Amino acid sequence: MPEVYATRRERLRERCAAGGSAAALVTRPANVRYLAGAAPLGAVLLLGGDEDLLLCGGPPSGEAAEGRPDEALEVRVLPRPGGDAAVAAAGLAAERGADSLAVEEHHLTVSRHRALGSVAPGLRLADLGGAVEQLRVIKDEEEISALRIGAEIADQALGELLESILVGRTERHLALELERRLVDHGADGPAFATSVGTGPNSGRRGHRPSDRRVEEGDFLSVCLGATYRGYRCEIGRTFVIGTSPADWQIELYDLVFAAQRAGREALAPGAAYRDVDREARQVLDSGGHTEGLPPLTGHGVGLEIDEDPQLAPAAMGKLDACVPVTVEPGVHLPGRGGVRIDDTLVVRPEADGGPELLTITTKELLAL
Amino acid sequence: MPEVYATRRERLRERCAAGGSAAALVTRPANVRYLAGAAPLGAVLLLGGDEDLLLCGGPPSGEAAEGRPDEALEVRVLPRPGGDAAVAAAGLAAERGADSLAVEEHHLTVSRHRALGSVAPGLRLADLGGAVEQLRVIKDEEEISALRIGAEIADQALGELLESILVGRTERHLALELERRLVDHGADGPAFATSVGTGPNSGRRGHRPSDRRVEEGDFLSVCLGATYRGYRCEIGRTFVIGTSPADWQIELYDLVFAAQRAGREALAPGAAYRDVDREARQVLDSGGHTEGLPPLTGHGVGLEIDEDPQLAPAAMGKLDACVPVTVEPGVHLPGRGGVRIDDTLVVRPEADGGPELLTITTKELLAL
Repeated sequence: MPEVYATRRERLRERCAAGGSAAALVTRPANVRYLAGAAPLGAVLLLGGDEDLLLCGGPPSGEAAEGRPDEALEVRVLPRPGGDAAVAAAGLAAERGADSLAVEEHHLTVSRHRALGSVAPGLRLADLGGAVEQLRVIKDEEEISALRIGAEIADQALGELLESILVGRTERHLALELERRLVDHGADGPAFATSVGTGPNSGRRGHRPSDRRVEEGDFLSVCLGATYRGYRCEIGRTFVIGTSPADWQIELYDLVFAAQRAGREALAPGAAYRDVDREARQVLDSGGHTEGLPPLTGHGVGLEIDEDPQLAPAAMGKLDACVPVTVEPGVHLPGRGGVRIDDTLVVRPEADGGPELLTITTKELLAL
Repeated sequence: MPEVYATRRERLRERCAAGGSAAALVTRPANVRYLAGAAPLGAVLLLGGDEDLLLCGGPPSGEAAEGRPDEALEVRVLPRPGGDAAVAAAGLAAERGADSLAVEEHHLTVSRHRALGSVAPGLRLADLGGAVEQLRVIKDEEEISALRIGAEIADQALGELLESILVGRTERHLALELERRLVDHGADGPAFATSVGTGPNSGRRGHRPSDRRVEEGDFLSVCLGATYRGYRCEIGRTFVIGTSPADWQIELYDLVFAAQRAGREALAPGAAYRDVDREARQVLDSGGHTEGLPPLTGHGVGLEIDEDPQLAPAAMGKLDACVPVTVEPGVHLPGRGGVRIDDTLVVRPEADGGPELLTITTKELLAL
């Protein structure tokens, strides 16, 4: 469906024109891929009045995982390898007679921005802001389908791990094994660094796997995701090792589970981001866990694993249909461990059955 | 050795003072780690007239792989999670009476830089440039020791792979297996995404592993590295699959081998970066391979896998003793494949035996 990219570029062109710039330079890789179908290393997209151009540092590799550039798009490779395609694109925009170029100030460094100004001194550099990120929030069914397949892959990888012997293995090895299984099942690769936390490390958001080994009585929390056709999903679960969870473990698990359910149930078109966050957060608060709570209880996913919207206390805005988000509250008790439960869901209207759960691994407290 | 960090900060303080700024803000993670011993996610280092401060977005995790913050350093955690530690640090610098703050303009985005200016309007923002990167070029023996151990780990992982059956396995699986073995042998993790290229994909710099399977008669090129205590090394080798390499394969291999040896032999204190590059490059040129040559034939390694210096035609500067670099020429023939040979070495004076080879896996053309 190459026309999907042309349509996206057309929508961006309209926004730019409304902002007073006929030309735009897109540098953030996920934004380039969204608009051009591929983002080879160092590539930038120059959006002109009518003609668009993908400028690459080197020849595209042609790997499926990288995406293929939209065939309707002119692709040019920098003559001198190692140069900055953004600087070359600014020079081209000036040559083509643009007087103003909208750039991604939240992505360009101060030094790069200055280099753009130097190569084309007559060009006024404006701010494109998060215009492409905003376009990316609502997904089409093809994007959602890629996320759905990625979620299935992550569910499979996690399911297989649960059938294996866990006691005695290190966090690092479990993480690597999960990543291997993701690739086995067809992922382009992991969507982010797989997190495995045992015992006192369990329940910590973004915990980097260590050499700690799984022990009887531990909480074990796992967070992983697959990238499929560039789209990244996320699932997190917490288990208990051994036959009989301690009372504090059951209590904490039930609390986080209730918080996560409250967050999931709050997902609906029109719901304010902060209200979804509050639904999950107030359950944790009610359990007395006001300290060390995460800054957010969920976020958008897509071509990046952490994209708009943020489900957080100070977030502004409301959910739309077809926005995939995570719901991932957690509690970590220093020195003891904790619980995180994390799903990827797509916001859908109630008439369509409400939020669509992509990650379907059970959320019962399993004793492994 | 905590005093090593204090000494590094002192050297940076002197450079800043010479540049007219009493205070500096270091945001690039590898630079923060170099000066503070650790770089927890989102942490920044504020270098004051006499008092330094590591400002973190959340509590440091305490993982060995992340490094531990220098105990001589004040560590503060942002009161509001999710905020930008750089902005908070700029506010603090202004409160403490600084009138000028040197920042890393090659790392800060335009938007973040603007936020720094807004929170402390009286503060003049200067450019720290690559001052920390320059300090990082020459390594001390402890840093070199970490690289040496990392190189041993990479050699072991590669050696084990060569003993296994390769035909029929995919690039992706071989890459994952190498990464698992790196961790098995004690690496913090891979130093970069392991590259495995077979057949027409062989010899391509930075090739992302695909689902192509190893076949009889293929070139197989592998590039991997270990991170050990934060330090990243790199090794690349090319093999041939099956008993008898074709004539073109032997010819191409010999040429790249000769180029790589010429580059290695040119490493010496005082040698110009571009001269080392030319030594390797002119061998490839002499073989008629002037098209599609890589932009560089080597680069520095350390806390990042690609750091100063660059061994490239337009690079300015000369090598010093105790600078670890890669030498990695390669040729890729579109549609046929190619050869890359890549070592990590430390520049040493001739009196000390000349360049120290860290990656010692054989560079004979092995038929596997």
